[in-house]
Parts: sequence; C-alpha cells; structure tokens
Amino acid sequence: MLPKEKLVKRLNEGFHICVGLDSDINKIPLHLRDNPNSILDFNKAIIEQTNDIAAAYKINFAFYEKDGQKGFDLLSKTLEIIPKDVLVIGDAKRGDIGNTSNMYAQSMFEHFNLDSTTLSPYMGFDSVSPFIKYTANISFILALTSNPGSKDFEKLELVSGKKVYQEVISKVRNWNENKNLGIVFGATNLEELQENIKNFGGLFVLLPGVGAQGGDLEGIVRTFKEFNNNNYLINVSRALIYADGTKDFAKKSREVLLNYNKSIAEV
Amino acid sequence: MLPKEKLVKRLNEGFHICVGLDSDINKIPLHLRDNPNSILDFNKAIIEQTNDIAAAYKINFAFYEKDGQKGFDLLSKTLEIIPKDVLVIGDAKRGDIGNTSNMYAQSMFEHFNLDSTTLSPYMGFDSVSPFIKYTANISFILALTSNPGSKDFEKLELVSGKKVYQEVISKVRNWNENKNLGIVFGATNLEELQENIKNFGGLFVLLPGVGAQGGDLEGIVRTFKEFNNNNYLINVSRALIYADGTKDFAKKSREVLLNYNKSIAEV
Repeated sequence: MLPKEKLVKRLNEGFHICVGLDSDINKIPLHLRDNPNSILDFNKAIIEQTNDIAAAYKINFAFYEKDGQKGFDLLSKTLEIIPKDVLVIGDAKRGDIGNTSNMYAQSMFEHFNLDSTTLSPYMGFDSVSPFIKYTANISFILALTSNPGSKDFEKLELVSGKKVYQEVISKVRNWNENKNLGIVFGATNLEELQENIKNFGGLFVLLPGVGAQGGDLEGIVRTFKEFNNNNYLINVSRALIYADGTKDFAKKSREVLLNYNKSIAEV
Repeated sequence: MLPKEKLVKRLNEGFHICVGLDSDINKIPLHLRDNPNSILDFNKAIIEQTNDIAAAYKINFAFYEKDGQKGFDLLSKTLEIIPKDVLVIGDAKRGDIGNTSNMYAQSMFEHFNLDSTTLSPYMGFDSVSPFIKYTANISFILALTSNPGSKDFEKLELVSGKKVYQEVISKVRNWNENKNLGIVFGATNLEELQENIKNFGGLFVLLPGVGAQGGDLEGIVRTFKEFNNNNYLINVSRALIYADGTKDFAKKSREVLLNYNKSIAEV
C-alpha cells in the first residue's frame, strides 16, 4: 500500500488521531525502566493496543537521536513493529540546501523507509524539493506551529498583507503538483485555523498541540467538518502514551484513543 | 578549552576557514571507495592535513544520518579524530517545540559532545532556548542562507520595513545574553552582507557558500575587515575536500586551504 493510500483509507474510516511516539525513559511506567529494551517494549505495547484505531504514528526523531546510534537502532526496531497498513511520519523538521536536503530525504525515505516526514520551510523551495520528488511519500511542511515562539516569525505580517505562515501555505499549495504535500498547523491556533482553512486546498493537515499543549479538539474537528475537509490528522503524544503509569498503561492508552475517536465522531 | 575559547583563539590567529566534512562515498577518491572504512579514512586524512590551519570543522549531519546507525557511528568516530583544540560544528539545522528541542540539544551537546550547532529560527524563541542554555556551546541560527530558496521566505519584506532574515538577526541579538550565539549568513549574498553587517553586534557569523556555490571570498573578507569585525567563519566543503581524486587528495586539500588562508590575509 502506498503511503497516501494508507492515510486516505484511515481518514475515510473516520480515524484522525496520530499517535505521537515521543517515548522518553523518564516518563514511561516505572516497572519498565530497568529493562535494557524498555523503550522498545513500551513502544511495542502502545502500538499493539492502538494500531487498529489510529490514523497514523508519528516518530519524534529527537527522542531517539539523543542517544546516537543506539537511539537510531531503537527507532529502526520500532518501525519494524508498526503494521504496514498504518502511515508512519518521521517528525524531524529537516531542511537544508538542495544537495544536503537530498541526503536527508534519502535518510527518511530510503534508509528508514518512512512513509512521511515533517520539514521546515525557512530555506525555501530547493530545501524541500528533494522530498517532493519522492512522489509516493507525504511531506508535511511547517506553517503555523503550536508553540509560543510561533509569534516570533511565523505570525509576522508581510507587506503583501499576508502573515509569514500564510505565505508558506500559499507557496506549499503551489509546490503540490505531485499531491503529496501537507502542512503542520498547531491545534493551539483555532482562530487562525478558522480564518485560513479555506486556503488549504488539497493539502493534508497535521495538527499537533492537542493534549499536553492544550489545543481544543472539538473546535478543530468542528472547523474541518464545517468546511467539509477530511484531510486532517490530529497528533496526540504525551496525553495518550503516558495516560497511565501502571502495568495496564497500554490498555489505558487504547481507552484514551477510543475516547478521542468517539469525541471526533460526535462533533 | 571551552568551545568559544577554541574559536576565538583561531580567529585571532587569522584562521577563518571552516572545513566542511560533507563526506560522500560517491565523491571521495576512487581508490578509497572499496574499503569498509572508506569515509572514516577519508575524513582522517583530511583532518590530519588541515587541523593546524583550519578555524573549525563543520560536520554535515545529513551525510551521516542517511546511513542511520552506521552513519552515526561513523560520525562519532570522526569526532574522536578531530583534535580537541579546534571548534567542531554539528550542522543539523534543528528546531522544534521546547521539550523536543531540549532532546535535540542533548543529542548535539551531550551525546555527540559537539562544540557548536546550527539551528532553524522558524519556530521562534522557545525552539532555540534549550540550546542557548548550554552557555559554553555556540549555536548558529539561520538568518540569510546561500541557496536560491532564500528568496521564498527569508528575503520577504515585513510591514516593519525589515526583511524576515533581518528580523531574525535582530531577535538573535536580543537572545544573546550568554554571548554564545551566531548567525548563518550565506556568502552568496555579498550586497546584503554589506548592508547588514553593522547590525551583527557581537554575534559570530558562519558563512557557507564559498567554493561550489560561488560566493565571493575576497568581497566577504573585505567587508568584515572594513567593519573591523573578526568574528567570522567562512565554510568551504566540496571545493576543499574534493579538490583532488588521487592518492595525494589530502595534501591537495591542505594546499587549497593554505591558498584560502593566504587570500584572506592579503585582502
């Protein structure tokens, strides 16, 4: 199954939650921490309990590469566990000059064989074009992020009348000839979502910020439904994978995910 | 020696060239390619021939992480070879929300024990602050890059009258309370350098784009000398490390570096 087909199938089935595997040794249940394979065991349990009802998984590269080669080994082993019919996003926010971005694209889509990745737009077209050329893979480009720092540059107004992030959305739409692009739009920015959703075109939308960061799930979903746009993935990491610290943590994560799915269906 | 001391010492000695280790199996001399340690042997030879006359080394993460855990192992082994009195920059252009950037900072400054790194400013202050807190390490934040895509967002004009990259420079100066920040300013933008250098304050400046990308070394150096600013590092990667494809490649790289150093001294 091609990455885009995996995603569209799940979205059409009504699944919109992306499970963020921000797995941190200091936050997983205590009983797992002494085990040398603790993070892998944790990821495995979460994946087993959620893969039939998740829209996608998002692997946060930082949480793995902080341990260098061991972390990358763990990342590879985690990828092997995820069933092949669920989209996997490598959240790495890469971006560099063309010949270097080409290497990053090789890393994401060939070495790790990920379905999808996240990119930073700052350096412009030639920094993302090596990723766009992988027509079967989906690249999500940062537009408006969920963090406080989004005000520093993303929300600044240009002489054209657009904000910087709006110019990003506009350009990403123009770059989407292969229909394999998306944007990252922080779920903490509901007003901006309502204002801009009409300009998203056919772009996929990845919305982080629900859960620990406080984004409004119901408001987000209502907005997408009002605009008859089904191309959205809402990422939840900490609030889902660390829902419980007991031996039943993975079952509890499944319950939390079922609740999110129910909330989405009921909007 | 602290990273900043390493850098300032070399700059004061008149060394300004940063050797970019963009080591690529498809570009290193043919006679090395069949060896299982080919890239490491290549890096070792280049480092041995250049470490006394380089201002710094820059490790382009993409060229290593494209091979996953093996690449990271190679990166670690390369770092072991570099003498401890030369600044090493991990060129990774990271940037994410606070708790994730914290992990990336751990990766760069604790796991790999790098002196310095490059960051993307797009997500704003909280995305770079975990790096700033490592007061002994130098973080270079992208301002105006050397690639064609710099026109897409970096050079757009804000209603404040500043360009986006100028706003980045202004904010990075404000964030520089620990005196450990720098900017990346592409050497292909000589006019913009002349226009903006008066606003750099005490920021270190990393200028990629000389060599394969065609930046004007003499113009860059003259501009810094005119403004009595010695805080600049000019990165050369491909034009230096791939100067020759014979068994004498490393000696040839030394000659090229000596010529760059001579050109800088003569401006």
